[in-house]
Amino acid sequence: MHNFADRLIETIRRKKSCVCVGLDPRLDLIPAEITSKASSPSQAILEFNKAIIDIIKDDVVAVKPQSAFYEQYHAEGVKCFFDTMDYARQQGLIVVADVKRSDIASTAEAYARTFLKDSPADAITVNPYLGIDSLEPFIKLCDELGKGLFVLVKTSNPGSKDFQDALLKDNRKLYELVAEKVGDAGKKLRGKEGYSSVGAVVGATFPAEAKAIRQLMPKSIFLVPGYGAQGAKAADLKDYFNKGGLGAIINAARSIIYAYKEPNAQQWQDAIKQAVKEMNKEINGVIR
Amino acid sequence: MHNFADRLIETIRRKKSCVCVGLDPRLDLIPAEITSKASSPSQAILEFNKAIIDIIKDDVVAVKPQSAFYEQYHAEGVKCFFDTMDYARQQGLIVVADVKRSDIASTAEAYARTFLKDSPADAITVNPYLGIDSLEPFIKLCDELGKGLFVLVKTSNPGSKDFQDALLKDNRKLYELVAEKVGDAGKKLRGKEGYSSVGAVVGATFPAEAKAIRQLMPKSIFLVPGYGAQGAKAADLKDYFNKGGLGAIINAARSIIYAYKEPNAQQWQDAIKQAVKEMNKEINGVIR
Repeated sequence: MHNFADRLIETIRRKKSCVCVGLDPRLDLIPAEITSKASSPSQAILEFNKAIIDIIKDDVVAVKPQSAFYEQYHAEGVKCFFDTMDYARQQGLIVVADVKRSDIASTAEAYARTFLKDSPADAITVNPYLGIDSLEPFIKLCDELGKGLFVLVKTSNPGSKDFQDALLKDNRKLYELVAEKVGDAGKKLRGKEGYSSVGAVVGATFPAEAKAIRQLMPKSIFLVPGYGAQGAKAADLKDYFNKGGLGAIINAARSIIYAYKEPNAQQWQDAIKQAVKEMNKEINGVIR
Repeated sequence: MHNFADRLIETIRRKKSCVCVGLDPRLDLIPAEITSKASSPSQAILEFNKAIIDIIKDDVVAVKPQSAFYEQYHAEGVKCFFDTMDYARQQGLIVVADVKRSDIASTAEAYARTFLKDSPADAITVNPYLGIDSLEPFIKLCDELGKGLFVLVKTSNPGSKDFQDALLKDNRKLYELVAEKVGDAGKKLRGKEGYSSVGAVVGATFPAEAKAIRQLMPKSIFLVPGYGAQGAKAADLKDYFNKGGLGAIINAARSIIYAYKEPNAQQWQDAIKQAVKEMNKEINGVIR
């Protein structure tokens, strides 16, 4: 199965889950039994990530490592980022590299090679501010390699109103123009299920906006951050999906991987397992 | 001298130059006398960068390594990126890390630490699409550390029209709204010279837009890409500067570091030296 959207949908159906787990490592929240044995922060993070992946792999669709939390350890952290993605892919998970890169086309080609071609990632996140020509090198490689893209459309933070909600002359908001143009650019990457491999990032904290974006991008898959720790609840998410329960994957990081708040606590594994099962139940209860 | 804008202006005056050289390594264009001795692509790039820095250090204000070209070599490339910046700083150059990062505030904090705090970079580039709250962690660290930010306002690529030129209800373009809000956010970082350490990326290919942005951000320093290989000429750049010749640094990469087109050619060093001197002369001729 070559098309990313088709692969993602097959995985969603097989696992009966739309959950993506954010692998956002914070050293002070990693269980002491891991940090005490590790020789470096990056090694502790990799061991923690592998443990999480082993716990969640049968119950979730995807993992989304957030590059910033790895890059802070410079070269060693970047190695850990790619090693984490390698392991997740080996364990049958879809891997979304959350890198939010953007640049002019000649430079975007280098980013596309780095994170799509020479990379275990199945998909990456990108920022659209530079325009459609800056996305083309990513779209081209996704087409060639059967990989995917999630373009920022409406992000989960309060400040997303500043520019994404800017009111245009034709009474639309900027994010609607972005949704339309990104939706058009993604049409050529539609798979057998009808969905495009060019998806959109739409924050869980903005259900009304998501409804508008769904109209403009009916066959794009939404990657939805902001669930759990950022405040969004399952009941808010109905309109992110199409009828039949397809069209979105919901990301949670802190509320899953740090479900057991005290790093020294026993049974942190059980807490993660439990948090994932509850999140699946909550979301499936709303969309099916 | 703690304020980044003050440091930059002092360097511009002392060196009588507004030139920034883009360190965008392309292995196939690096002289064979360097690649033949190197044990890895990253080593070849670092040696080439050091040679360039030695040649240009007395004649230019800054260097701007483009992260994408280093990240493509994963961990080793990231080490080379930081080693290049270390060397440039030791040689008295202002260092702009061209990373164009963007994320919600809690994640942006990690990027800010990585590229401003635990980093030899004097300044970095960032993408404003997520809004002002996503820029605040960067602005805060710039204030604390005396470092600087260049926020994408109007980029040099043709596709920048797609969203940056979107016409707003009040008849302004989106980039004008971005210029205004970023200018406001930067006011608290003004130094003794009156300029803010929060600058703007404004492409050399859009002089009319630059004139409008200069009105909205009178005391912001522009980082101007697109000179040389992307087509802009010195005569186009007058309105990027304030009277007195301050307010912008002009970046060129390919036209300087690959001034001698054949990688095997002798005297590539002379070609780089000559290209920098010509660029200084061209730009100083227009602004002074």
